[in-house]
Amino acid sequence: MTVRVGVLGATGAVGQRLIQLLDPHPEFEIAALTASASSAGETYKDAAKWRVDSPIPEDVAQTEVRATEPESVPDDVDLIFSSLPSSVGAEVEPEFCEDGYVVSSNSSNGRMDEDVPLVIPEVNADHVDLIEVQRDERGWDGALLKNPNCSTITMVPPLAALDGEFDLTDVHVSTLQAVSGAGYSGVTSMEIIDNAIPHIGGEEQKMESESRKLLGSFDGAEVTLNDASVAASCNRIATLDGHLENVWAETAEDITVADAEDAMDTVTGIDLPSSPENLITVFDEPDRPQPRLDRNIENGMGVAVGGFRETDDGVQFNCLAHNTMRGAAGASVLNGELLSQRGYL
Amino acid sequence: MTVRVGVLGATGAVGQRLIQLLDPHPEFEIAALTASASSAGETYKDAAKWRVDSPIPEDVAQTEVRATEPESVPDDVDLIFSSLPSSVGAEVEPEFCEDGYVVSSNSSNGRMDEDVPLVIPEVNADHVDLIEVQRDERGWDGALLKNPNCSTITMVPPLAALDGEFDLTDVHVSTLQAVSGAGYSGVTSMEIIDNAIPHIGGEEQKMESESRKLLGSFDGAEVTLNDASVAASCNRIATLDGHLENVWAETAEDITVADAEDAMDTVTGIDLPSSPENLITVFDEPDRPQPRLDRNIENGMGVAVGGFRETDDGVQFNCLAHNTMRGAAGASVLNGELLSQRGYL
Amino acid sequence: MTVRVGVLGATGAVGQRLIQLLDPHPEFEIAALTASASSAGETYKDAAKWRVDSPIPEDVAQTEVRATEPESVPDDVDLIFSSLPSSVGAEVEPEFCEDGYVVSSNSSNGRMDEDVPLVIPEVNADHVDLIEVQRDERGWDGALLKNPNCSTITMVPPLAALDGEFDLTDVHVSTLQAVSGAGYSGVTSMEIIDNAIPHIGGEEQKMESESRKLLGSFDGAEVTLNDASVAASCNRIATLDGHLENVWAETAEDITVADAEDAMDTVTGIDLPSSPENLITVFDEPDRPQPRLDRNIENGMGVAVGGFRETDDGVQFNCLAHNTMRGAAGASVLNGELLSQRGYL
Amino acid sequence: MTVRVGVLGATGAVGQRLIQLLDPHPEFEIAALTASASSAGETYKDAAKWRVDSPIPEDVAQTEVRATEPESVPDDVDLIFSSLPSSVGAEVEPEFCEDGYVVSSNSSNGRMDEDVPLVIPEVNADHVDLIEVQRDERGWDGALLKNPNCSTITMVPPLAALDGEFDLTDVHVSTLQAVSGAGYSGVTSMEIIDNAIPHIGGEEQKMESESRKLLGSFDGAEVTLNDASVAASCNRIATLDGHLENVWAETAEDITVADAEDAMDTVTGIDLPSSPENLITVFDEPDRPQPRLDRNIENGMGVAVGGFRETDDGVQFNCLAHNTMRGAAGASVLNGELLSQRGYL
Repeated sequence: MTVRVGVLGATGAVGQRLIQLLDPHPEFEIAALTASASSAGETYKDAAKWRVDSPIPEDVAQTEVRATEPESVPDDVDLIFSSLPSSVGAEVEPEFCEDGYVVSSNSSNGRMDEDVPLVIPEVNADHVDLIEVQRDERGWDGALLKNPNCSTITMVPPLAALDGEFDLTDVHVSTLQAVSGAGYSGVTSMEIIDNAIPHIGGEEQKMESESRKLLGSFDGAEVTLNDASVAASCNRIATLDGHLENVWAETAEDITVADAEDAMDTVTGIDLPSSPENLITVFDEPDRPQPRLDRNIENGMGVAVGGFRETDDGVQFNCLAHNTMRGAAGASVLNGELLSQRGYL
Repeated sequence: MTVRVGVLGATGAVGQRLIQLLDPHPEFEIAALTASASSAGETYKDAAKWRVDSPIPEDVAQTEVRATEPESVPDDVDLIFSSLPSSVGAEVEPEFCEDGYVVSSNSSNGRMDEDVPLVIPEVNADHVDLIEVQRDERGWDGALLKNPNCSTITMVPPLAALDGEFDLTDVHVSTLQAVSGAGYSGVTSMEIIDNAIPHIGGEEQKMESESRKLLGSFDGAEVTLNDASVAASCNRIATLDGHLENVWAETAEDITVADAEDAMDTVTGIDLPSSPENLITVFDEPDRPQPRLDRNIENGMGVAVGGFRETDDGVQFNCLAHNTMRGAAGASVLNGELLSQRGYL
Repeated sequence: MTVRVGVLGATGAVGQRLIQLLDPHPEFEIAALTASASSAGETYKDAAKWRVDSPIPEDVAQTEVRATEPESVPDDVDLIFSSLPSSVGAEVEPEFCEDGYVVSSNSSNGRMDEDVPLVIPEVNADHVDLIEVQRDERGWDGALLKNPNCSTITMVPPLAALDGEFDLTDVHVSTLQAVSGAGYSGVTSMEIIDNAIPHIGGEEQKMESESRKLLGSFDGAEVTLNDASVAASCNRIATLDGHLENVWAETAEDITVADAEDAMDTVTGIDLPSSPENLITVFDEPDRPQPRLDRNIENGMGVAVGGFRETDDGVQFNCLAHNTMRGAAGASVLNGELLSQRGYL
Repeated sequence: MTVRVGVLGATGAVGQRLIQLLDPHPEFEIAALTASASSAGETYKDAAKWRVDSPIPEDVAQTEVRATEPESVPDDVDLIFSSLPSSVGAEVEPEFCEDGYVVSSNSSNGRMDEDVPLVIPEVNADHVDLIEVQRDERGWDGALLKNPNCSTITMVPPLAALDGEFDLTDVHVSTLQAVSGAGYSGVTSMEIIDNAIPHIGGEEQKMESESRKLLGSFDGAEVTLNDASVAASCNRIATLDGHLENVWAETAEDITVADAEDAMDTVTGIDLPSSPENLITVFDEPDRPQPRLDRNIENGMGVAVGGFRETDDGVQFNCLAHNTMRGAAGASVLNGELLSQRGYL
C-alpha cells in the first residue's frame, strides 16, 4: 500500500531534505509539491535552488510546483509534510486539517498547543493519540502532528533514557548549532566566519518548553509536562550541519557515568522504516561526537553521545544529531510513518 | 624607573603577544628572550614564526635568543614573564625563583599549589601577598606568581561581581574557545573546518578549580577556596581569537537581570598601566558579545558580557574576552605590574 | 578649509567604511548621510547594522539619515561620496551632478563611459581632467569621477609599475576574493563554508575592461585604452576582507624577477592625505602576501606583492589589497582628495 | 582471481582513503599494512587516527601494522600501493621493486624519471609499457608506476580532451586547493581560517612538468614531453576536500566554447573497475563546479568542469576533482587495476 504524500514548502532547505528522504521511500510516494505563490507553475528544478549533496531526483525536477493552499493539492493525497515558515504554517496548516488532510509538520507554530501532539516516535509515540482529543475539540477530519525543534530533538532521546530510571530534576544545555538550521540564507558569511553568535531568537524558550512536553506523560486526555527544570543557552557556529550540545543532567536518583552510558546504550528503537537500529550511539573517545565526523551516523537519523563526567548531582555529557535530518526532515517523515502505522491516515 | 624584563618561551603564540605588549610598555623594557635550546643563538626574527598582526618590533627582531635557563639571563633582569609549556615550566620556573628572579607566569603548572598566588589583579590583588608564605616555605629570594587559564579569566571577573553581593552557589559554564588558545599548531585545519571539538584536555578541571581559588579568601596565611560549585564543559570552535562562554550563575540571594547587569557595570578598575578603564562592558543587544566583533574591547583587556536572562535561582549570561591578551599575555603583564607596584621586584 | 561631504548609501558595508575613514579626516567633514527611502528619518545608528570593527562615531550615530535624492542634501555640501547599488547609482548620480554636486563614486555604473574619468590617483591622476570634457558634453556644473572595482584596484598599481618600463602585452589574473566584496548579505554561510565559488557576476568583464582604461593614456580629449590583453577568472572564498590575486604579466621587453620587484618597490606615492607612503610593499617570503596577515598594510591603503617567478615572456606574482579600504571606500576618499587638490570642488 | 595487495604508509590521510577504496574492492584484497617503525606491531586502529567519514572496516581495525620494508611484507603479496612521504618513498620503493614487488605509487619521488611511467589510465594508459624499459635498465622483477600530483590530475583530463583535436600551445592554471592535500596536520587552523596561502612548496613545478609528461607521447622507448607551455600558480584555501582550478588553454587550432565543452563531454572511459562512467562532467551553470557540491561526483573519481569563456587564442574554464580520491588514493588504485589488466602482476 503506497501512501500519496504532499510537501508544503518543498523548495526550502528542509523541503529539499524531505524530498531526499521521500524519493525513494518504502511507503510514501510524492504526489504534490508546494511553494510560495510566486513559484507556482514552475518546475521544481526552476523553483528550488537545489543544494543537497545528492542530485535532484529526475521526476521531482520536472514536477510542477503548486501554491500552498488546500485547493491546489489533489484530494487523493493521504499525508502532508509541512516545513513552512511558522507564520505561514500557523495560517495554512489548520486549513489543510479542516479540509481533511493529516499533516506531519516541522514548523514551530502550535507545538505547545494543548491538543497538538509533539512527538519523537522513539520517545513518546503514545502522545500521537492526542489526535483524538484534537479532532473532538476542533472538529477536524484531518489532524496536526508536530515534531520538535532541531536542537530539542538532539537532547531529548538521551534525556529520556535517563529520566525513566533516574528521574531528571535539573537540565542545563548549551548548544553549538549549524548554520543550516537557519535555512539557506539565514546566516550570512560575514556573520559567522571567524565568529560565533550567542543568540538564536526564541530557540532557548523552545528547548525549555518542548523538552518538557516530550518528556511529559499523556493520560488519554492531556499531556502533563515533565517537572524537570530545563535551562538552555543557544549559539550559532560555523558548521554546515549537525547540532552539538553540552548537557548537564541532574537526577533525583544516584547515577554514575556507567549508569548513564548503559541507559543510553540500551535504548531500543521502534519498528518504523526511518527509525535507526541504534537510536543512541555512545562514544568512548572523550572528544566525540563531533559534527563533521558523526552527524551522518545511522544515515543522519541517530543521536551520538559522549564526553560523560560525573557531577555533584548527576552527569554531564555531549550529544549530537543531524539537524536537518533527525532534527527536521527525518523527524517529520518518521512522524508520518507513525501516523500511518497507527491508522491515522 | 624602568624594569628590565625577560621572556621565557618568547617565540610561541603567547610569547609573541607578550612582546607586542612589552614593546613599548610604560614601565618595562625587554632585556632577554629565551626559547628552546635548539633556537639559542639565532635572532628572534629567525627563531620565531611571527604571526601577530602588528609588525615585529625592529630591535626585537635582531635580539639574540637565549636558552631557557637562569644562567643565560643577565643578573640585572628584574622580572621574568613565562609562557612555557607546563612540563617545561614545572622544571624551569623554580630554578629561576631559586636564583632570585621574580616570575609572572602564564604556564599552567603549579597554579593550584597552596603557596602559589593565582591572581587577576582586578579580582584578588590581595592574594599576591601569599608570596611571603611562599618565600618562607621555599627559601626563595625570587617569587612565583601565576595568572589563571584563559577560559577561567573570561568568566571570573563577572562572577566576582556577582559573588560579593549575591553569594554564588552553583555555576555551570560552557565554552566556545578560539584555536589560538591551543598555540600556533595546536589545532589542525582538518580538525576544525566545518566542525567543533567538545573536548580540551584538562580545561574543564582547570576552570572548576582555578575559579574557586580566584574567588577564594586569603587570610595572610592561606587561600580558602570559594565554596560555590563550578561545572565546566569546554569546546573548541573555528574562531581565531576570543573565548565566548555561556554561564549560569545560581546565587543564595535573590537576583534579577538588572541586579546582575548593574553589579558588572559598576566594577571599578585598578590603578595599573594595562588594566582597562572598564573591566566589564555590558551589552544590551541580545546577540552580543561576539568573538570577532568584541574581542578587542579595551585593547583586548576588557571582558564583554550580554544575553542576560533570569533563571530559577539566578541568572544566565554570556561573556567574552580575548584569550591571548586578557586571557594570557596581558594577564601576565598585568600581574607583573602588580608585582612592581607592590614592591616585590 | 574644511570640505563638507555627503555619503550616498551610507548604511551599507562600503558606506560604513566610508564613515570610518571620514570621521575624523583632515580635510573632510560629514554633513549628510543618505540611505533608501525606507530609512529616511531614522538615526544612522538605527538605520545601519554597524559591523565595522571600530565603534560607530558618536555624532554619526545620532545623525538623521536622509533620502538619496539631491533635494535632501544641503546646498553647502561640496563633495558627494557614492556607494550605491549600481542600478540606483545609474539613476541618481547624474541627478546630483546636474544639480551641481561633485561626486566621487564607487558604484560600478558608468565606469566605462567615454567621458567619465576612472582613476586611481597614484596611477592615472591626470585622467581626472576628463571632467572638463564631461562638463562640456553633459552641461553639468557638478562632475562624476569613478574609482574602479575592488579586484581591479588590487592588480593595477603593480601592473602600472611594469607597463611603463617593460610594456605589458598579455595579462592573466585569477582572484581569491573576500566575502565582504559582495556586501554584508551577499554571500550566505551555506555557500562558502568548506567551499569556493568560481564565479562573480560581471567581475571578470570589469577587470578586463577597467584595467585597460586605467592603464590607458589621456590626451586632453579622450582616453585610449591600453593595448594589453587582459584575461580574468574570479573566485569567491571564505575570507572576510582582502582580495588575493595570482597574476601573470607578459611584457614586450625582457624582464627579470629583480626588474619587476625593483619597479614595484620604487613606485612613489602622491601627495594626498590618504595615499600611503609605500603604495606597493614587496615581500620576499614566498608565501606572502596573505589576506589575514597583510590586508591592513599601510592602514589598508597599500598593495602587497610577492611570490615572483620568471615565465617564458614575463613574470608571475601575487598581489593583495584590502577590498573595502583600498578597493572601495578608501579609493573613493582618495579620489575626493584628488578632486579637492585639483580644484574641482 | 583475487590480487593480494599491501599498502605502504597506510595510516596517513591518503592511506586511509586507500583502505576505504580497497575494502571492499572487486579485485583486490588487503594483505599487509605498513607504517613507520614506531607503529609496527600495533593494531591499525591504534596506529591510525581514523578520520575518513565512513567507519573503519572491522577486519582492518584489528590488522597488525608492519614496518615499511620488503622483509615485513608476505611474499604472496602481488601489488603494493605506496603513499609514503616522498623522502621515504625515494628510499623504500626501489627496495620493494628490487625484491620483485610491483608498486603503484602516489608519492612524488621519481615521477619525472625517464624510465618511470606516470599514468592517468583514461589519458595515457599506453605509457604503462615504459615498465619494459624500466625493467631492462634497472634489472627489476618488480616495477614502479606513478600517478601524478593531485592538482595535476584535476586539469589533465580536460586538457587532454582539447589537445588531441585543437593542439594546446599555452596553459595558465591557478589553483584553489583543499587542506587535505597537505595531509592531516599539514595546514594549521591559524594559518587558514579567514585566510588563503598563495604558495604550496614545489606544487607549481610539479604541475608544470608532470602535465607535459602525461600529455606526452610514448614510442615504446621513451616519453617525449608535450610541447605546450604550462604556467601554474598554487593556493591553499579553507576547503576540506576538492581542488578547484581556473584554466586558460590556448590552442593552435581555432576553438569555441561549444567545441571545448563537446570535446570534454564526449570523453569515453576505460574498462577498469574504478574508472567512472563519465570521466568529465560538464556543468552549464556558470558558478559550478564548486568543491563542496561537486567533489563527490562519480564517487569522487570524476572531474567536473564549467565556466567556459572564449579568449583571444583559446578558452578558459574551471575544473574540479576530489584531491584524495581521484587525485591520490583513487588514482593509485586505478593504476593498480591497469597493472593487473595489462598483465604486469
